[in-house]
Amino acid sequence: MAPVKVGLLGLGTVGSGTATVLKRNAEEIARRAGRGIIVDFVATSKSELPAGVGLSNSRITNDPYDVVNDPEIEIVVELFGGTEPAKSLVLQAIANGKHVVTANKALIAEHGNEIFARAQEKGVIVAFEAGIAGGIPIIKALREGLSANKINWLAGIINGTGNFILTEMRDKGRDFQDVLKEAQALGYAEADPTFDVEGIDAAHKLCILSSIAFGIPLQFDKTYTEGISDISSDDVDYAAELGYSIKHLGIAKQTDKGIEQRVHPTLIPKKRLIANVDGVMNAVLVHGDAVGPTLHYGAGAGSEPTASAVVADIIDIARALTSDPENRVPHLAFQADSLSDLPIVSMDQVETAFYLRLSALDEAGVIAEITRILGDGNISIEAFIQKEPKDDGKADIILLTKVVNEGAMNDAIKKIEALNVVSGKVSRIRVESLS
Amino acid sequence: MAPVKVGLLGLGTVGSGTATVLKRNAEEIARRAGRGIIVDFVATSKSELPAGVGLSNSRITNDPYDVVNDPEIEIVVELFGGTEPAKSLVLQAIANGKHVVTANKALIAEHGNEIFARAQEKGVIVAFEAGIAGGIPIIKALREGLSANKINWLAGIINGTGNFILTEMRDKGRDFQDVLKEAQALGYAEADPTFDVEGIDAAHKLCILSSIAFGIPLQFDKTYTEGISDISSDDVDYAAELGYSIKHLGIAKQTDKGIEQRVHPTLIPKKRLIANVDGVMNAVLVHGDAVGPTLHYGAGAGSEPTASAVVADIIDIARALTSDPENRVPHLAFQADSLSDLPIVSMDQVETAFYLRLSALDEAGVIAEITRILGDGNISIEAFIQKEPKDDGKADIILLTKVVNEGAMNDAIKKIEALNVVSGKVSRIRVESLS
Repeated sequence: MAPVKVGLLGLGTVGSGTATVLKRNAEEIARRAGRGIIVDFVATSKSELPAGVGLSNSRITNDPYDVVNDPEIEIVVELFGGTEPAKSLVLQAIANGKHVVTANKALIAEHGNEIFARAQEKGVIVAFEAGIAGGIPIIKALREGLSANKINWLAGIINGTGNFILTEMRDKGRDFQDVLKEAQALGYAEADPTFDVEGIDAAHKLCILSSIAFGIPLQFDKTYTEGISDISSDDVDYAAELGYSIKHLGIAKQTDKGIEQRVHPTLIPKKRLIANVDGVMNAVLVHGDAVGPTLHYGAGAGSEPTASAVVADIIDIARALTSDPENRVPHLAFQADSLSDLPIVSMDQVETAFYLRLSALDEAGVIAEITRILGDGNISIEAFIQKEPKDDGKADIILLTKVVNEGAMNDAIKKIEALNVVSGKVSRIRVESLS
Repeated sequence: MAPVKVGLLGLGTVGSGTATVLKRNAEEIARRAGRGIIVDFVATSKSELPAGVGLSNSRITNDPYDVVNDPEIEIVVELFGGTEPAKSLVLQAIANGKHVVTANKALIAEHGNEIFARAQEKGVIVAFEAGIAGGIPIIKALREGLSANKINWLAGIINGTGNFILTEMRDKGRDFQDVLKEAQALGYAEADPTFDVEGIDAAHKLCILSSIAFGIPLQFDKTYTEGISDISSDDVDYAAELGYSIKHLGIAKQTDKGIEQRVHPTLIPKKRLIANVDGVMNAVLVHGDAVGPTLHYGAGAGSEPTASAVVADIIDIARALTSDPENRVPHLAFQADSLSDLPIVSMDQVETAFYLRLSALDEAGVIAEITRILGDGNISIEAFIQKEPKDDGKADIILLTKVVNEGAMNDAIKKIEALNVVSGKVSRIRVESLS
């Protein structure tokens, strides 16, 4: 068969990786796909091509519309990132009947419903494995490998920067700000780290995973998002003392009330495999009703790991080029006309256990007052630690509660913070057993 | 679209699980596949159907050929296990133009080359995800999710019984025979445990993984197979002391000399995620040139975990029914005419590090003699522990070597065993860093 001609939008980290992998593994890939894959046309603003990417036979342009409008191109690979011009380019490519591969989670999370609808009309594929957890084939696992299951829940470490920071805090007792600076120096975190450490990037990925797991439309704006910038090294230490690691998780869960879609720091038992996923690595734990727990682990970012997913998507499309569009794997795992209108559950209805840390005067009756407030809210205590008082006469109190409704917990926290003997805010981190 | 009609051969553990999952998740599955999936015809020797499997509308027969020859059946699901009559039934189903799903690793490992050739001629699919690592979608990950990569190596815990035994030995200091008896009582191990503990089951699975990873024909008979029955609780303890866990691994590796395909007990660093895969759970660690390491973890056996993979394969076929056979994912990941004739490397050419344990008289000069023999063989020592002598005046000596050719190691071991001061055999276990 004739080689498939690919058009590449962008020659940054992932674009260069994609060209490099397609070149280096050209023979393996042709043996797998049954045909060659050629980067025929590249849009880049760079005046010089990166070394080693092997694009000497490719056409180059600085106008990406040259690529999406080129009649020779069968698959457009969008690696610009961000919303525009990516969205317009992808829609134009679809309108031109081209298949699309993208690593752009923001684009899919925020505009995927529209993009997939257009793709459906035109009978083309939009593939986005590279957008979530880098090289881990988690979209494929959820959409195809675990398709027999009703997914009960999934929990993922899906932002490598955040995981690097929390790992360093735990292993070296360092502060958040200190590690963040190092992560920026190492190139793991952007100059503006908000996207990573405040959970927006993870929320983009989570809402995509949730859609595919539960067959619901993409609903990024309903994803609860809480970052890790308030986690102190004390919290990390106390969690360890209690047998837990703190991980920044994206959690999607089906309950009687609907779908929970939430990104937040989470205490998880140290003995869980996912609690030992450290540094910049990613992992997604999926719990299906038939299969039970499965864990999918790998590099969540980086040039070639992300390219691994981009190229796998290209090969998938090459293999499916002659298939009947109606029989292809649907974009969101479920058929477009079979998506569900299950509501996204608001956070005050979510139920989890909690870790609480507060600073209180070392006086008689303090514990009685706190436990009375919790008791009044029907909040059971799983563990209670009172530390030695510090020089200022205040002592850290650390509590683990049993599973409780988040609204009830918030009410109780307000009452505890109003106590005269308690100073400052109560730190609270959700706890998940992941069993 | 009309529902897909499936014929089920066998209603044992996996067959019942398959019927149960197809019934319980019928709505989810139809939403995913775009059509229903119906178990229309079942071959079973049972006189009564298991409860809850929901086959009240299915035809039942005790002659499996009724199913494979039935014109209504589009997909035959073979769950008898073993070589015959499974092989004849599968070939007959293929001859009749039916797609086949099987959980039968022995059949695929030993007869897959012939079966896939026949399937290729008839343009039908033979799917076998359930045969390897139960519910973990590892075949799909290797064949599609990681298809951009040249696979460097993979290492898997792919027999749950063996992993349960080694985990109990480590965690509770128990002996092999003692745990084996419990595993048999729990139903994890068969009355004849040879298949599991001597590595034959793992070798079946490994040769399939190796074919898919490297694009070579199935070569079960060239797979090196060593069991765990000689592992002592001393070995487990000493390994832990050195920072290692002992796992029974299936390892497939591409080197300059060809493909290594070997199943044996292995010391692996405790800090690796896969070293913490315990009990009956399975995991496969895959190292690709672009993606780096990925780990795929889940239940390796059991009724519904295995059914999860069977049903996923059925859904895959349902989705691909109208696709052009030439554009489907090839059975062994690589196109049938693109398989490679890379040789399987014989064990004496394999290079690994080694753990050695021996018992020697507590006399001056013993260590000098042993280290001289190793030095003469150009075998470097990474760690050396001499234990306190026991009551019989003999002391355990434990060595970790650097990476060495297996042939050279065997020669050195023979010389060490010939020393007067050394009593009995030298225990040797291969060591892999998995980095």
